[in-house]
Amino acid sequence: MKITAVIMAGGRGERFWPKSRNASPKQFLSLTKDGETMIQKTVKRLSPLVETEDIYVVTNATYKELVFDQLPGIPKDNVLLEPCARNTAPCIAFAASVINRKYEDAIMLVLPSDHLIGYEDIYINTLKKAIKAAESGKRLVTIGITPEYPETGYGYINFGAAKEDVYAVERFVEKPDLTTAKEYLASGKYLWNSGMFVWKISSVMLNIKTFMPDIYDGALRIGQAFGTPEFNEVLVKEFTAFRSESIDFGIMEKANHIYTIPGSFGWDDVGSWLAIERINETDNDNNFIDGDVVTVDTQRTTICGGKRLIAAIGTRDIIIVDTDDVLLVCSKNNTQDVKKVIAQLKEQNRNEFV
Amino acid sequence: MKITAVIMAGGRGERFWPKSRNASPKQFLSLTKDGETMIQKTVKRLSPLVETEDIYVVTNATYKELVFDQLPGIPKDNVLLEPCARNTAPCIAFAASVINRKYEDAIMLVLPSDHLIGYEDIYINTLKKAIKAAESGKRLVTIGITPEYPETGYGYINFGAAKEDVYAVERFVEKPDLTTAKEYLASGKYLWNSGMFVWKISSVMLNIKTFMPDIYDGALRIGQAFGTPEFNEVLVKEFTAFRSESIDFGIMEKANHIYTIPGSFGWDDVGSWLAIERINETDNDNNFIDGDVVTVDTQRTTICGGKRLIAAIGTRDIIIVDTDDVLLVCSKNNTQDVKKVIAQLKEQNRNEFV
Repeated sequence: MKITAVIMAGGRGERFWPKSRNASPKQFLSLTKDGETMIQKTVKRLSPLVETEDIYVVTNATYKELVFDQLPGIPKDNVLLEPCARNTAPCIAFAASVINRKYEDAIMLVLPSDHLIGYEDIYINTLKKAIKAAESGKRLVTIGITPEYPETGYGYINFGAAKEDVYAVERFVEKPDLTTAKEYLASGKYLWNSGMFVWKISSVMLNIKTFMPDIYDGALRIGQAFGTPEFNEVLVKEFTAFRSESIDFGIMEKANHIYTIPGSFGWDDVGSWLAIERINETDNDNNFIDGDVVTVDTQRTTICGGKRLIAAIGTRDIIIVDTDDVLLVCSKNNTQDVKKVIAQLKEQNRNEFV
Repeated sequence: MKITAVIMAGGRGERFWPKSRNASPKQFLSLTKDGETMIQKTVKRLSPLVETEDIYVVTNATYKELVFDQLPGIPKDNVLLEPCARNTAPCIAFAASVINRKYEDAIMLVLPSDHLIGYEDIYINTLKKAIKAAESGKRLVTIGITPEYPETGYGYINFGAAKEDVYAVERFVEKPDLTTAKEYLASGKYLWNSGMFVWKISSVMLNIKTFMPDIYDGALRIGQAFGTPEFNEVLVKEFTAFRSESIDFGIMEKANHIYTIPGSFGWDDVGSWLAIERINETDNDNNFIDGDVVTVDTQRTTICGGKRLIAAIGTRDIIIVDTDDVLLVCSKNNTQDVKKVIAQLKEQNRNEFV
């Protein structure tokens, strides 16, 4: 069966401020020294599995040019532009209805655009297993990540009986507290919810129709208008009318035939500036240093330089990010507080920095 | 007797890098929020005591325009330009010989250009006492600072018998180790050597002649040429021929009639970035923040902003200095290591940053 991929690239990524901004969110940034952006890596690693002409990118209309620039190989018609943000369920329904015009049925991989994968061969093999599982019947398959520690920032997937590496999902659970996360880890019955899904177009459309009939109807009208002169008008009308809904809550937590494939391929959601030292090589003093930097007695320091010389002296457990108009100096204990800075700037109407 | 002042402004001030550079040393920087530079403050605080036309500035020839710009009130002929750096003894001999052309004899205050004074009235009164002491006989008077703690970074003055607040100097001592510094403090017989001197031109010239006859002869020839078309030629010839010598070693440690006046007027030598929080007001979390800065959970942090927005999150005991081309992030434990960065940059021939 034809394999298509839908890369969800509408996100904002506040936690990489000041590099990520409204005008340049995380998926369009390079956070590794090779200079490739997150979304470029996402597309590239699919090449053993999906034809470029079958890769779709769903993003906010304001990021159209960023996608065209960074992914010149993707056909422009495959760049699906959301007029506004409505979370993952309308995004997936939109993409499914468009792909449905091209293929009578097909496998649809749904993938975030801003995660990193350490072991790409294992990743591809895991996706192949998921595809095989999704091809039979009406299965909705999610990739679960074998947890490495009791993370409290992710949702978890509780799985039950297995048949040939395909596990039935018992339930999806929200971000747990630390005690609960430790119990999940100890039980051996929980995986991290990575937000990667594999299904047939026909399977997901059936479930959208069953559990979100309003979104189904709108998505169908968008799909019917695709390729016609009225497309944009119909898209704006129908998409803005959608309610905001996640695919997890809208379908996955309600539907039958939900399965998971456990994956262990060096997945990293690159969720904060702390990720930089995980996803890049560090020096003997556990520093990550990129840019024009002079250091003296510097340890466990992450420096993402800009155009200027940076001198770091005696620093410990700190993150320094230099951009043309903003400098961030952040303790590693406080990476989540970047959002508070953005909130302050919004309050002050300093939108040029947001 | 006429009172003249010689402000020594040839220094380099590496410890305030990256704000201080070869082209803009510390005395020409503003390190307080009022925007006044160190040398401007030095001149201003002399106004109750010295006529502007009797204030002389000795500096390196490369800083001529900086002095003219920052001190437009000082007569241009009073700006004495050293062709090269030769430490304080040639500097003082040069100034004394020039002033000697104008006044048959006069009081000469010798003052650093890059220190701060908290209590200017007390400072002026202390200078007045020193002037009174210097007017009688051939006394060389130095201002000693009543020490507040066992500082190991300063030289000390050991004093003996007193007559009307004027103390005979027993000896000058070099920077002590901590144990010795504590003993000095406990003895009540030691003052910090501030590098401020008060004497008659005739007294200092006599001592230069006695202890540094080579420098005396050269300085005399410079003084004789002052105001003639040959002045610059003579100055370059004689001054470059001087050996490098400090006034402390060259005269003060050898001469008789050395006296000290203890001063307690909030003196600060502004010796490193740590001084910023001492000489400025700090907020309730002991931060000093200047510039366009957003903070979240920031304590004991010094931020000297530049043109860009700075966000500091969760920082502790750190100094952030932003300039157009260089950013410094330095632990408060490592402020002396700024010199190591400059050394690295020199090694790399990156002189644009030095």
